[in-house]
Amino acid sequence: MASIFTKIINGEIPCHKIEENENCFAFLDINPLVRGHVLVVPKMEVDYLFDVEDAVLQDLFVFSKHIAKAVGKAIPCLRVGVAVIGLEVPHAHIHLIPLNHVGDINFSRPKLKLSNEELAEIAAAIRANL
Amino acid sequence: MASIFTKIINGEIPCHKIEENENCFAFLDINPLVRGHVLVVPKMEVDYLFDVEDAVLQDLFVFSKHIAKAVGKAIPCLRVGVAVIGLEVPHAHIHLIPLNHVGDINFSRPKLKLSNEELAEIAAAIRANL
Repeated sequence: MASIFTKIINGEIPCHKIEENENCFAFLDINPLVRGHVLVVPKMEVDYLFDVEDAVLQDLFVFSKHIAKAVGKAIPCLRVGVAVIGLEVPHAHIHLIPLNHVGDINFSRPKLKLSNEELAEIAAAIRANL
Repeated sequence: MASIFTKIINGEIPCHKIEENENCFAFLDINPLVRGHVLVVPKMEVDYLFDVEDAVLQDLFVFSKHIAKAVGKAIPCLRVGVAVIGLEVPHAHIHLIPLNHVGDINFSRPKLKLSNEELAEIAAAIRANL
């Protein structure tokens, strides 16, 4: 069965898309740790990041750099952090997280509740900085 | 002034080294979140990960994949997670963290206290799986 991220990539589930290329797709996390929290996923459905083939892994991080630069311009933060956990959805995904404090990357804390309109505004602000 | 990581790379400060290549250097974090917590750094001293040039960024993550595979064999865990925060030491570094729970990546919690002998054993076990 297709993962939730494959359904998002295929447009079967709506998302706040940031950008895509041949191998990669970036969209807002709808349960963000902070405003501007983006997910970057390989289009190929691979469970574990370090099972992704080298060429796609390379593309994922160069693409993530491009997205992170736009996030950093759109969202006030000291820098954009990276986290890959992967214990929940079996489709590798890179979290790009605007950081202001070392504790901002903590997946056991409560997520923000943002409206669809707020998420749409954030996505538009990031896209405007690509 | 050279960063603490540059001093480690140059051998001016001792470390529990895992491996190096032309662009990258991997060693144990001496203040680990969990056993087997490794740092991967670019040899070139760049503060922010997303300011690292594309070719080196690509090398860093393919090298990290190679190291993470060995960590995953040496340390009992569900998988090896990734975190890049970068608010403390001004030299980009990738944390590779053996994960068993989603809360295992939380940099605001107390670090493990491991003896030099324990760290040496962990490093040897990871190197044996490279």
